[in-house]
Order: sequence, then C-alpha cells, then structure tokens
Amino acid sequence: MQASITSPSDRLSTLRAMIAARGLDGLIMTTADAFQNEEAPDHDRTVGWLTGFTGSLAHALVFADRAIFLVDGRYGLQAARQVDGNAWQFGHLIKEPVAHWLRATAPGTRIGYDPMCWTVNQLEALHKDAAGVDLVPWPDPFAQIWQDRPAMPQAPLREMPQDQAGRTVASKLAWLQGEMSAANADLWVETRPDNIAWMFNVRGGDVAMNPLPLSFAVFSAVGPAQWFIDPAKLAVAVPEGVAAQPFEAFLPWLEANAAGKSAAFDPAFTPDAVAKALAKTGARMQPSRGLITVAKSLKTKEELAGYRRAHLDDAIAMARFGQWLTHELPVREATNQPLDEWEVAGVLAGFRKMSPRYLEPSFTTIAATGENGALCHYAPAAKGSGQLRAADVFLCDSGGQYLCGTTDVTRTYAFGPVADDIRHVATAVLKGFIALCAARFPTGTMPHQLDALARAPLWALGLDYDHGTGHGVGHNLLVHEHPHRLGKVANPYGLEAGHMLTIEPGYYDEGRWGIRLENQVEVVARGPGFLGFEPLTLVPIDLSLFDLTALTTEECDWIDTYHQRVRAEIAPLLDHPVQDWLITATQPIPPR
Amino acid sequence: MQASITSPSDRLSTLRAMIAARGLDGLIMTTADAFQNEEAPDHDRTVGWLTGFTGSLAHALVFADRAIFLVDGRYGLQAARQVDGNAWQFGHLIKEPVAHWLRATAPGTRIGYDPMCWTVNQLEALHKDAAGVDLVPWPDPFAQIWQDRPAMPQAPLREMPQDQAGRTVASKLAWLQGEMSAANADLWVETRPDNIAWMFNVRGGDVAMNPLPLSFAVFSAVGPAQWFIDPAKLAVAVPEGVAAQPFEAFLPWLEANAAGKSAAFDPAFTPDAVAKALAKTGARMQPSRGLITVAKSLKTKEELAGYRRAHLDDAIAMARFGQWLTHELPVREATNQPLDEWEVAGVLAGFRKMSPRYLEPSFTTIAATGENGALCHYAPAAKGSGQLRAADVFLCDSGGQYLCGTTDVTRTYAFGPVADDIRHVATAVLKGFIALCAARFPTGTMPHQLDALARAPLWALGLDYDHGTGHGVGHNLLVHEHPHRLGKVANPYGLEAGHMLTIEPGYYDEGRWGIRLENQVEVVARGPGFLGFEPLTLVPIDLSLFDLTALTTEECDWIDTYHQRVRAEIAPLLDHPVQDWLITATQPIPPR
Repeated sequence: MQASITSPSDRLSTLRAMIAARGLDGLIMTTADAFQNEEAPDHDRTVGWLTGFTGSLAHALVFADRAIFLVDGRYGLQAARQVDGNAWQFGHLIKEPVAHWLRATAPGTRIGYDPMCWTVNQLEALHKDAAGVDLVPWPDPFAQIWQDRPAMPQAPLREMPQDQAGRTVASKLAWLQGEMSAANADLWVETRPDNIAWMFNVRGGDVAMNPLPLSFAVFSAVGPAQWFIDPAKLAVAVPEGVAAQPFEAFLPWLEANAAGKSAAFDPAFTPDAVAKALAKTGARMQPSRGLITVAKSLKTKEELAGYRRAHLDDAIAMARFGQWLTHELPVREATNQPLDEWEVAGVLAGFRKMSPRYLEPSFTTIAATGENGALCHYAPAAKGSGQLRAADVFLCDSGGQYLCGTTDVTRTYAFGPVADDIRHVATAVLKGFIALCAARFPTGTMPHQLDALARAPLWALGLDYDHGTGHGVGHNLLVHEHPHRLGKVANPYGLEAGHMLTIEPGYYDEGRWGIRLENQVEVVARGPGFLGFEPLTLVPIDLSLFDLTALTTEECDWIDTYHQRVRAEIAPLLDHPVQDWLITATQPIPPR
Repeated sequence: MQASITSPSDRLSTLRAMIAARGLDGLIMTTADAFQNEEAPDHDRTVGWLTGFTGSLAHALVFADRAIFLVDGRYGLQAARQVDGNAWQFGHLIKEPVAHWLRATAPGTRIGYDPMCWTVNQLEALHKDAAGVDLVPWPDPFAQIWQDRPAMPQAPLREMPQDQAGRTVASKLAWLQGEMSAANADLWVETRPDNIAWMFNVRGGDVAMNPLPLSFAVFSAVGPAQWFIDPAKLAVAVPEGVAAQPFEAFLPWLEANAAGKSAAFDPAFTPDAVAKALAKTGARMQPSRGLITVAKSLKTKEELAGYRRAHLDDAIAMARFGQWLTHELPVREATNQPLDEWEVAGVLAGFRKMSPRYLEPSFTTIAATGENGALCHYAPAAKGSGQLRAADVFLCDSGGQYLCGTTDVTRTYAFGPVADDIRHVATAVLKGFIALCAARFPTGTMPHQLDALARAPLWALGLDYDHGTGHGVGHNLLVHEHPHRLGKVANPYGLEAGHMLTIEPGYYDEGRWGIRLENQVEVVARGPGFLGFEPLTLVPIDLSLFDLTALTTEECDWIDTYHQRVRAEIAPLLDHPVQDWLITATQPIPPR
C-alpha cells in the first residue's frame, strides 16, 4: 500500500490516513501483546516501531490533530529522548490514563483499538471511565503498514521432565476438568504462555529470558484440550489429551465451538477479542480467577527441590562474584582502569554459566554504581556504563534461568567507609528486610497485608520506596510470576505453604545512591494455621553498609542464623580463595 | 388479613402463604433496614419479629419446603437458642451466603426480596453469584402480616451549632454541588442518615445511641436539595437551600424528577429500590464513592476541638471509674458481695453522666470479666451478669455520645497477680497496640496496609484476633463511622490528616480471658508527606497485665510519654482520691 514508510513521522501520517479510511476518529495503542507479556516479541513492538520508544510499558492515542504518548514515572526521561516531541504530546500513564484523554473527546467519537492487545478488564474500565466514546475493534492495525515487520518467533519447545515438574500433564488436565465441572464451565480459555507451558510440561524460547512458547489453549471440561501453536515449535510430542491446532485457528475455533457453552477465563489477562468471539456465539461468559495461575503458584515438592538446587548454583556464582569484586575493584581502581558496570555484569553472567543447569539470565542484570543505583530500572549498556569506585555503593540485581528453576537476587556492596546518613537509611532498609523475612502470619494472609512490615522502619524516617516489596517467581518460567505480587496494592490471592516469592525492600536517593536487598523465599508452614518464609537465596549480606549497633538482638540473631546457613551450605561447594571470602563474609556479628 | 398471628410458627406459615399468593418460590430477608443502620429501629426488625432473633446481623431464606437462617460466628449460639430449630435450618452467613442457597435452587426460580433493605451492590452480587434465579422486588413484605408493628420513630431534631460543626450548611451544599458538577452528576441520592445529619448540621434521636434522623435526601447540582423526613421531627428550621418533603415521597420524587438526568449514589449503601426507581425513568446511573462519607470523615478544626473536649470529660469519668473499681473490688470481694458486670457498667455510665456535655452511651457497654472477656460482643444483662474477682482479668469497652463528639475506649484491668501465659500474650497485644499507635506512614496509606503492624507480635506467637483493628468515629454521630475501617479487608479510602480512628487490637482465649486495648486517635501530619496518630483517649493503661521486661526501650518510652500526657492533662481536672489514683497509675516504668 505504501512505498516508503521510513521515518517515524511517515509512519504516523500513514497511520492517520488508515484511521480516517476506516471511518474512525482515533486509535488507542499499548505496548502490550496478546499474551500480556512483560517483554513482547519484536513482532508485537508496534508502539516502538511507530514512535522509536524501547521501554516496556506505554500507551498512546492518535487523533487527526494530536497524538498523545503516556508513560509512568520510570520512563518519562526515556520517552522524551526517544519519541518526537513535535509529533507527540507526553502524559502520565497513571495520573492521566487513556480514559482521561478519551473523556475529553466529543460524545460519539469512534476510537479504534486492537482487541488482542487490550484485556477484557481494560475494555470494561474504558467503557465505564470513558462512557460515550464508541470503542471499535480493529484487529492488528499495523498489519498492512509495518512492512519490514519481524516474524513471530518459532523457537522449538523442550520438555520439562516429569521428575522435575512433579505432576504429569494428564494429572493437570484431570485436575482442571474437575475444577471446571465444579464451576459449571464447559471451556477454560487460556492466553498466558507461562500457564500453558506449566499445563503441558514444556518450556519455549520465543522471548529472551522468558522461556515461554507463545501460544493459546482452550481446555474443555470433557474431551481434548486445544493447543493453538505454530507447528514449527513442536519439537516435543503433543501430550495425550491435547490436540494441536494452527496458531491462527484460536479465535475461529472459539467462534465455531463455543455456542451454547459456558466459557470461563481470567479477565485480567484475556484479550477483549476472546470475549468478542465468545459473545458472537452467544456463549455464557464466566470471568473468573486464573485457575491455572493459582494452581501453578503452589509449587510441587519436585519443583521446590529444583529451585533449591538452582539457588545452590546461584549462590556459588554470587560467592565467586563477591570474592572477585572485592579483590578486583581496588586493584583496578589503583591502576586507573576502574571496573565498569557492563564488564561486571558480564563477569557475573560468566560465573552463572559455569553451572551445567544454567540457561540464560532471568532478566537484564541491574549493575548500578553510585547514583545509577538510584534508578530502579537501570541497566548498564556496553558503552558509557558507570565506573565502580570504592567510595560508591554498588547495587546488583540479577538472576538466572536454570533447567530446574528461576532465581532472582539483589545485593548491595560497599567497598570502603559509608557516610553516616547512608548507613542510617540503609539500616532501616535492612530492618524492614529482616522484619518481613522473619514474619510469621496466618495461612491465607494476602500479600498486601505484609507490605508495611518491610516499609515501617523507612516510614519512621519519613522515607519510602516506589516499587513493590516482592513478587512470585516461576519454575524456569517468568521471574515475575503472577499472582503473588507483594506491595501496597491490594492482592486478593492469599498465601499458602509452597508459594514462591521475593522480598526486596530498597531505598533510592536520586543523584546519589541506591540500596536494595532481595532474597527469594519459599512460603512454609510454621505451626498450625501459620506460615513463614524460608530463604532460598544463600548469598552473604554485606554488613559494612549498616549500623549494626542500631539492630535489636533479634535482628542480629536473624542475620547470624542466615549467615551460618549460607556458610554451612555453600562453603563446602567452594574452593580457595572464594571459600575464604565466604567464610569472612559470614562471620557472626561481634558482641556489642 | 390474619386474625391471630401470635407465634413464630404462625408467622412463618402466614409468610409462606403470602409468598405463594404472590407467585413466588421464596423470599430472602436481611436484618438490615433501608438506611443500612448498624442498629435498626424496632419498626424494621422484621427478621426478629419472624424468628425471635435479637442479634444485629442475619440473613434468612424462606422456601415452601424449607427455611434457612444464616448468621456469622458471633451469633451461632444465640441463633440456636432464639430461633426454632424445627422450623429453621442454620447456616453460616459468610461461608454459605444467600447466593449459595439460591444457586442450589432450580433455574428460573422466582425469589422475592425487599428492595429497600438490600443494597445495589448486594443485588449486583446476587445476580452474578446466583445467575439463573429470578429476583423479584417485593416492597415491605411484612406490611400486612405484622399487625402490632411498632411505628417508625419520630424523635425531634436538634441543631449541631455551627461553631461546633465548623462549616455552614450553605458551604457544604455549595461544595457538594461543585463535586457533582465535576463528576457530571445532576443528582446525588443520599440514604445514609449520618451523612444527612452532617450535611444539614442536625442530630436526631431515632435509634438509641445513634443520634441520627432517619431520612433520605436528594441533592441537585443546581437548585434546592430535597429532604425526605417525617415533619414531626422538624423541631429545627429546615436549612436554606433545602426543601422538606414527606418521608414517603422519596422514591416517587425520583421517579417524577430523575428522567434525563445523571444520578450518582454510593452503591455500597444505597437501596436497590433507588436504582430500580432511577431505571424506570431512564436516568443515567452513576455508582460512585460516597462523596459525603469521604468529606465527613475529614474533621473540621472545630469538630476536632469538640472531640478533644469530649475526651477530657471521658478521661475524667474513666479515671473516676478506675479509682472506684480498684478501691471497691477488694472490699466487695472480702465482704462476699462481689461487684457484678451490670452494676459496674452502671457506675461507669454514672461517672460519664457527670459531664454537662454527655448525652448517652455511644454503644452498649461491654463489661466482661474472666471468660466473658473472651466473647467479643458480650454485654452484661441485669440478671446473671458475671462477678468481678481479683483473680480475673476485666475487660471494659465503652464510650459516650457528647454534644461535641463521640468517644470509644477499651481498657483491660488486673487486680492481682497475672498468670505467666496470660502476661506473655497480653504483652504481644500491647506491643501491637504501641506499634500501630506510634506508626508513621505516607499520606494516602490505606487502612488495611497498617493492620499487620498491630497483629505481627501476636502472629509471632501463632495467635491472632478475629475482628478489625480499628474504625472511624463520628462527631456525635455513629461510633462506627465509614469509611475508615482498619482491618485485614482491603479498604480503598486512604488516610489524611484530620481523620478519626480507633486502634484496638486484642486477644481472646475462649473460656478463660480476653484483653483489648483501645485508643481513639486523630490522624495528624508528621513531616512532609507523612502521617501519624495522636491519641485523643487519655486513660491510664494498667501495666500490671504485662511483662515490662519484654518491652524495647522505644516501647517503654512510648508508654511513659503517653502516661505523662495523661497525667499532665487529666490530673489537674481531678480531686483527691481520684487524682492520687491517676498519679499512681501513670508512674513511669521503673528502669530495668
């Protein structure tokens, strides 16, 4: 249709012509894909193609006479740098969301949206918050105009062996059919790739660091499950009780088979297009909690053993890293060849690669020195990354995808004397970290109920951090796994023994320094009706950052017990000189 | 219609005949009235009339062949004692709610309900959770069969003087009209009597201890507000900008005036009948946060001064009570004429009555000794109330309605040595109480985020309490004022300086003892962007219950600071010997 759409401004004017040609007054866009992936495959980075923005979350609105680009606080600077301020007006994604801009339009305005990229819940909210606007589905608006669009990935599947998964596909299918019968649901529509990977005991490689097969599935209370997946990916046998279908057949299958049925789905993640396809058939829609999301969060004993094994490997790598860093930093600084963050991140990756079970990072390593540590989502680039100096605090948040589990750990290091004010605040972070790690709480407690325990010591100083306190972690799946995000926002999914979380309070002093401490923990029973957290992460905590005299006896005991365990489990797996470093790093706190 | 409906079983069979005569298969009932009062007037105690149940919360279902009576854990024993188990089957209100029983009926079943007594949200949930059941509005099903029904109360209004309210009715009306215009709402329908009392700067007396005028109001973005109230109550002038209407004209007025308008209301409290009346007119319905509920919760400086004045009066009464109790208990026990709970509650009421500002209790006094203290909702009766003994722990939760504010305080007393295990648990309650009282937290923090701070010390012992940790308190209005309930349940109404709460953790050991500590607190600014709690309650805490050696220095300091303030503010208002008692009761904790 277009001969040469080369620049962002060409792209925007072409898009405007398309919008007008469809009889619409505008289009709303999201960086999300149909799977609500945290990282979309290149094929689905439509907002990036249109605007040049490379961040992971933005919404955009294009009207004939204006275009609006919305990001949250994390991405304000980046959007201003990457997106053309002459063509786009910037706004705040949370404070002035899409609905805010739609409300300002004339009643009856017709606005297009891609029904695969917006969820059922999002559409419901838009209909409510921008009542009067006519929202018109427009499947894949970029199909025609994005000419050199990357293909959808076709990474081959691999099996998650049953002795590591702990449950057969057959048992999972039988369980789900039982749940569906109890809920009077004939169909369960599943669009989250990690849920599908878990159900079918497979892993994929369609998105870096997210070992997922991008696919859809529809489960039936009676009869086979339908798996909509590119056949090129099927390097493993399709499980018994599952029928493979072409990826493209997903919505047509629903339209052909859902009539007269009751179809359940998780409206927080399911594309609006699914609800539209079901509505066409007259199927009874049953928005529901994510059945598979909840079942997957309760790890089997085989999965738990895998996480523990992965954390031993991770602890060895982190010990090697800690020893190397402590030794190398002063040498390199003295010879005027300071370490830079990019190099340091690479060295850490190298240590992880020494495990035969290691596959790839579980997310982009945050290696951030001094003021970079205050940028929560900082990641060093090959060129121009920060230089580590003994006078600065160094924050490192990293993790690995292992065949048997996923890890996520943050440690903050000091290499010399720490300023009193930094030490004072860092100690509050440590106190909050310990308070939550050591907490005991009733079974079923919801994650948000625990959040304040980690924040209270910072709050007492009039300080806070602007991110969650923890999140679920997948089993060689997503490092941020639903539904157990632990933060200020209400989370109705209660905790039970076998859940997997991180605990990661921090503090960020813009322009100066940042600290975060993060352990991955398993939720375990602690007496009848009560739970606690058992650490999986076995990495020394650098105590030189803290005012140890400000800790209570209980807090000191917690650290000593933790360090004793790190030493007992990890030291035997290490050789000199890393073993010596670990033994020094896990010394008991001297009596006060 | 019926000549002699005298016994509960007559009433039930008559009701069944009425249900059948209307072509229905059943009726659902609630103890709630149209105002969602915590205490309904006698006229609206339909479930009580039908069954004999006197508790404040129950739901019931009557079908042709069965009748089901639902209460929560508090009322299980009482329901079994008061309600005929031959006629009624008992169930759990939370675990197996009305929808559970409706789901078990055949599809297409026609079930009646009184649309004034069920809220918009309740009906929406029933439609969703019991899809397939046909819910049929049946206004006031008891109108014909309850022959000796009490009339609606007609207590005269009194003014809340402007110098105590702090805002004129005109300013409140102008504010509300501004809010409505901003939200594009033409009408605001208000059915909560405390919100109406606050808007019109009046108080009523329709329900004991709840100084409310039972009435409805509809506010217009332009033009006068309509106040639907029995004219017999209008002992004060109707404010300017307000038109009085007969109480019965409420729904007809909506039906006659809402057409073409946008009508906003709080669906958590508004009767389904309002939504039905609006729907008839085709008005656009705008379910919304309770605008007046939120505005009322932010106390004016005049209201805050009133609460403080009321708490001085309350503290004097509580000091007199503490001194009397401490003196009298051993004397009466020694002479074999032990005090009983009823008498003690009466003496406390007598001390409160000595204030010229005192009107009545703000709720039924809980005076509970020994094992009675483990019953959260215990209230002594004139006959057979428990006897106070020095060997028992005594829990007293009481409060007053004063002209200038409402109070609510709980103290637990020991009169002799306390068993080690009781002391151990009581100390955890105290630690949680102090942790929350002393907490600092960001402005906008939601009440549920703070709940765990009060529970964590009990959780650490594997213990918990099964009630909320705090609630809002009205200004000579409801002692349980929305929206700031502080508990485990998510509460989206953030805290700001000027809010009014209680903090009241406890512990209850069934069959043995109970403890609760409760202070009323004002939310105050504590540095930029942060808040804290300032105590209004100035009543000594009986430290003989606790293991003071288990407290941290900070916890001891908090108690000492609090007691110093109690002594400084209250001792000068007392005479010998109460003053001496207070000075002893507020001694600093001895150095450890």
